[in-house]
Amino acid sequence: MFSGLSAFPLTPMNESGLDEAAFVRLIGRLVTANVDSIGVLGSTGNYAYLTMAERARVVRLAVEHAGIIPVVVGIGALRTCDVLALAEDAEAAGVSGVLMAPMSYQKLRPEEVFGLYEAVTHALLVPLCVYDNPGTTQFVFSDELHGKIAQLPNVASIKIPGVPEDPVAARSRVERLRAQIPLHVTVGVSGDGYAANGLNAGCDAWYSVIGGVFPVTALAITRAAQAGNTKEAIRLSERLKPLWQLFSEYGGSLRVVAAAAELQGLVEHPCLPLPLKALGGEGRRRLGGLIDELDLS
Amino acid sequence: MFSGLSAFPLTPMNESGLDEAAFVRLIGRLVTANVDSIGVLGSTGNYAYLTMAERARVVRLAVEHAGIIPVVVGIGALRTCDVLALAEDAEAAGVSGVLMAPMSYQKLRPEEVFGLYEAVTHALLVPLCVYDNPGTTQFVFSDELHGKIAQLPNVASIKIPGVPEDPVAARSRVERLRAQIPLHVTVGVSGDGYAANGLNAGCDAWYSVIGGVFPVTALAITRAAQAGNTKEAIRLSERLKPLWQLFSEYGGSLRVVAAAAELQGLVEHPCLPLPLKALGGEGRRRLGGLIDELDLS
Repeated sequence: MFSGLSAFPLTPMNESGLDEAAFVRLIGRLVTANVDSIGVLGSTGNYAYLTMAERARVVRLAVEHAGIIPVVVGIGALRTCDVLALAEDAEAAGVSGVLMAPMSYQKLRPEEVFGLYEAVTHALLVPLCVYDNPGTTQFVFSDELHGKIAQLPNVASIKIPGVPEDPVAARSRVERLRAQIPLHVTVGVSGDGYAANGLNAGCDAWYSVIGGVFPVTALAITRAAQAGNTKEAIRLSERLKPLWQLFSEYGGSLRVVAAAAELQGLVEHPCLPLPLKALGGEGRRRLGGLIDELDLS
Repeated sequence: MFSGLSAFPLTPMNESGLDEAAFVRLIGRLVTANVDSIGVLGSTGNYAYLTMAERARVVRLAVEHAGIIPVVVGIGALRTCDVLALAEDAEAAGVSGVLMAPMSYQKLRPEEVFGLYEAVTHALLVPLCVYDNPGTTQFVFSDELHGKIAQLPNVASIKIPGVPEDPVAARSRVERLRAQIPLHVTVGVSGDGYAANGLNAGCDAWYSVIGGVFPVTALAITRAAQAGNTKEAIRLSERLKPLWQLFSEYGGSLRVVAAAAELQGLVEHPCLPLPLKALGGEGRRRLGGLIDELDLS
């Protein structure tokens, strides 16, 4: 489950609530494309912005509509007690695994992060992916801490932020981490622009934002890398450079994929919770052109 | 209300809920000391970790026990719609003002932050303090954005992070901000170690963490600066350097003041929500010594 393409859909919503019909459509699209797993309520799924009840509802809808594709759900929250409650809700809904970032308001200290993973993994009945996302959590994992956490029960994967662009440096970055963790724990790359490099460097999985809205495009890169066709994976990723460029110009991938889903008619506008706003203006026009030009699907 | 010493108490809690009795004791201590205002549910009051219902309860308790001292309450949340609901709860409880940081999970963009303040200030019935806290929100205000927000209705103060140590640089930093904002908007310093410098440099208020647990100590610094006795304010602050040192060694003020309140018997242990942990071990022993040595109260 924690290998290949894990596609992270948006959770479409507005100021009145969830758009359940649009969410189910997004899940259906991932099932049709036959991604390797579906990661609901990741950062792209805006887990942090929803109530416990909304999160429980989203995970039930996902499991109900995902067919045989494993569903992994984000259970991060600021409080340990809320994470534990979310884990129970996720298990009751029938998820195959969970994903947890050390979400913070007060920047966390390493011993607090370890304590959080310790409490949660001991209570879990399903495998967990450690979600290393310094851009949203303000927490930077050391490989040593990854190693300690990876020894805990039920830890099955680590989702790392991007890898270096140079293939040799990328491979050595992945190997440095692998040296600290048990063999059964997989490593997955995130940061879509780094995915081809990360998979070529030996990552087992791509935790993918564009996979949630353009699964066919993301699968092509994944399958090329999995087949050992490193050059083709890089070529397919390089084609998408104008998209990666939009991500970096507009503060990350979320506002861009939200606009892409709106432009494709997959979700209504707005689909993000205020104060967040999907890409507008000139950036949105560029994005519309790119979707056609690059034939994203 | 947005001048002098604004004391920010902890909100004592554990995994079972709020410790209301301890919270009321902390408020009583601030009333006895006669601080200029009480800032409940600030970062020190762990606003981000509580449910809407818990926050509504805390603000009611504060207003009920604060007597004639103005109560200002933090209404920050990740979603604009939640901030609006919290503002209503705060007004219904009878607060004198509100405080709002642009809390984030996805790092916010300046236009999103402006949109947030625009929506909230237009709905408000009480004055608002803009809470600029890049350490917890991941958002860095430009003075230009402060200027735009300060023109909005109901904006009455800006809580800035520390000022430069050099008195001339500190004064010019405060003046640079003042040049951008209307005359009726006050400027308050935060980051306790910078307070004497900030007040001496012309800040109207000190939004104070130690003021919440050691109000007498914080008032002495404030009153010296307000009387124009700049050297005495600096001397009183320099005395506390070992305390500022603990703040910087242990990831900020929260874990240290939580331990201080526990050591003083003002709150039970634990008083912070997991995964956060109050200062323990060697740091806690040093803190215990300092409280006696420096006669903090």
